[in-house]
Amino acid sequence: MRGAVLYAPGDVRVEEREDPTIIAPTDAIIRLSATCVCGSDLWPYRGIEAVDGPSPMGHEYVGIVQEVGSQVTNITPGRFVVGSFFASDNTCEICRAGYQSSCIHKEPIGAIGAQAQSLRVPLADGTLVATPDIPSDDLVPSLLAASDVLGTGWFGAVAAHAGPHKTVAVVGDGAVGLLAVLAANRLGAERIIAMSRHQPRQQLAIEFGATDIVTERGDDGVARIKELTGGLGADSVVEAVGTQESMLQAIGSTRPGGHVGYVGVSHGVTLPGEELFYSHVHLHGGPAPVRRFLPELIDLIWHRQIDPGKVFDLTLPLEQAAEGYQAMDERRAIKTLLQP
Amino acid sequence: MRGAVLYAPGDVRVEEREDPTIIAPTDAIIRLSATCVCGSDLWPYRGIEAVDGPSPMGHEYVGIVQEVGSQVTNITPGRFVVGSFFASDNTCEICRAGYQSSCIHKEPIGAIGAQAQSLRVPLADGTLVATPDIPSDDLVPSLLAASDVLGTGWFGAVAAHAGPHKTVAVVGDGAVGLLAVLAANRLGAERIIAMSRHQPRQQLAIEFGATDIVTERGDDGVARIKELTGGLGADSVVEAVGTQESMLQAIGSTRPGGHVGYVGVSHGVTLPGEELFYSHVHLHGGPAPVRRFLPELIDLIWHRQIDPGKVFDLTLPLEQAAEGYQAMDERRAIKTLLQP
Repeated sequence: MRGAVLYAPGDVRVEEREDPTIIAPTDAIIRLSATCVCGSDLWPYRGIEAVDGPSPMGHEYVGIVQEVGSQVTNITPGRFVVGSFFASDNTCEICRAGYQSSCIHKEPIGAIGAQAQSLRVPLADGTLVATPDIPSDDLVPSLLAASDVLGTGWFGAVAAHAGPHKTVAVVGDGAVGLLAVLAANRLGAERIIAMSRHQPRQQLAIEFGATDIVTERGDDGVARIKELTGGLGADSVVEAVGTQESMLQAIGSTRPGGHVGYVGVSHGVTLPGEELFYSHVHLHGGPAPVRRFLPELIDLIWHRQIDPGKVFDLTLPLEQAAEGYQAMDERRAIKTLLQP
Repeated sequence: MRGAVLYAPGDVRVEEREDPTIIAPTDAIIRLSATCVCGSDLWPYRGIEAVDGPSPMGHEYVGIVQEVGSQVTNITPGRFVVGSFFASDNTCEICRAGYQSSCIHKEPIGAIGAQAQSLRVPLADGTLVATPDIPSDDLVPSLLAASDVLGTGWFGAVAAHAGPHKTVAVVGDGAVGLLAVLAANRLGAERIIAMSRHQPRQQLAIEFGATDIVTERGDDGVARIKELTGGLGADSVVEAVGTQESMLQAIGSTRPGGHVGYVGVSHGVTLPGEELFYSHVHLHGGPAPVRRFLPELIDLIWHRQIDPGKVFDLTLPLEQAAEGYQAMDERRAIKTLLQP
């Protein structure tokens, strides 16, 4: 099959990779209907995360089950399924508490590589959620978004306690940040402040439910959020970048007793304990347990209550993955969908 | 009046200070029935926090109201009252959300100095809570504990989501840590692991409801907590020290999705963002909003449901404050009560 492989920073190639096969009896093989490039794929692409030899890429996927191992019982061939970036058994104590991305048996899909024509998914029964039927083509991008960016933005909004009567600020205008806006809106937030200085992203934030746009960053961004919230800060802040500046911006923008939901993969962040202590915020985040939210998100998409697929503003054949990465790296595209 | 003043690390003197007077119409003057030395007083006493010239000390107090300003309406002379270490209006949006120690009008009592015979308390209506009657002498230590260490341990346990079916670990065996054990017990925790290597403190932890004692610290302490919790970590961990080691011990001891309540005043702590991200814990803490809990805590003490005053294992006349500090610094005493 064909699949994307990162050789070095800036060097993504689509090449022949071995067809996946069932290894464990809990595996499933999926023929992918769509896959995509994640903001987190840009960390190694930009050389900020080390690239350790040629690495298969991608961890977002939807598709049709081709084959299942002997112990797979819930997932059957022919079904259209959505999974997420960690395979999880969905039965351990951590999964049952809703933290499937810390499942005691978790396996990262990124190490297997979902930017490909087919994918082996471990722990298929726990990991995959089937849609009611084969979706029409126009639903596929939104279902693909549920695989990571929607689920991650949703977790960020839930971790930030977004809800009725709340003012929610979102730091980061990538796909996750924009979908955190959508999530905050669905969760009933009264006011949603998107922090963005890019006109097309501001536009999408507004479509997703943002009520205010703040273009300032860092300390100026914090000052602006305070100005907009009677000097107190937002009730809920979603951090969807993962840098030192964005984390401090998120913490600083939150009122005492408020909640920060941080879902940007942390890179080079060190939090000053004293500042955090006196900020009085709640801090929660990490790799989103997307599996927790998948049934609900699939249902919302299936009934066309939300349209998170709008974050895909570039669609390319898998063969052109390199251009898909480059467009996101240069911020020409919010998110690239790849057609296998 | 007489009052304790810190001149330099290790140099606490009890000397003549000016009698307090009403400055703002919202002030009250209290004749103190008891005051005490806090673990956090040891930071400047040990020179870890800078001492900026002679500083009045102390922020824990109970006593009888002597005089009130013209705008004080709820608190009347002759009543026995308990306050906490931040004066707060108890009416602003932050106070109403339960974060009185971040009140928009907050004033630190420590800057006024409660290790004295009398004290001016700003924002008396919002800050002070009166007991039903003048308490009998044996209740005074427990009411004094409510002023800070009990309220702080309680907040730590609440922030850590201690409750039924939960395994709670407590890092730190000072008065706050020990009272976090008491709080976790009252809040219904199933199992309470006190981390302590000091026999008299272990004993008190057990009296307060600890079910297990762990003597290991740091990585070994984390490993031991995991051993005791099926490899997962505790559901709830209270951090009651404030150092880098204790914070990492608390975070490392918590299972994914679990809650860390941190109330040790943060000194020189920097949290590694990536470790925190992948830990999946909830982190909440800061200066305890003791005022939130005072009515409930006073009620529990008044009806002799709890006896937090047991943390005072040394009682001295105010004049011997220096010995009170030294005994705590050398860990000869858990907590020193001073009689004005």
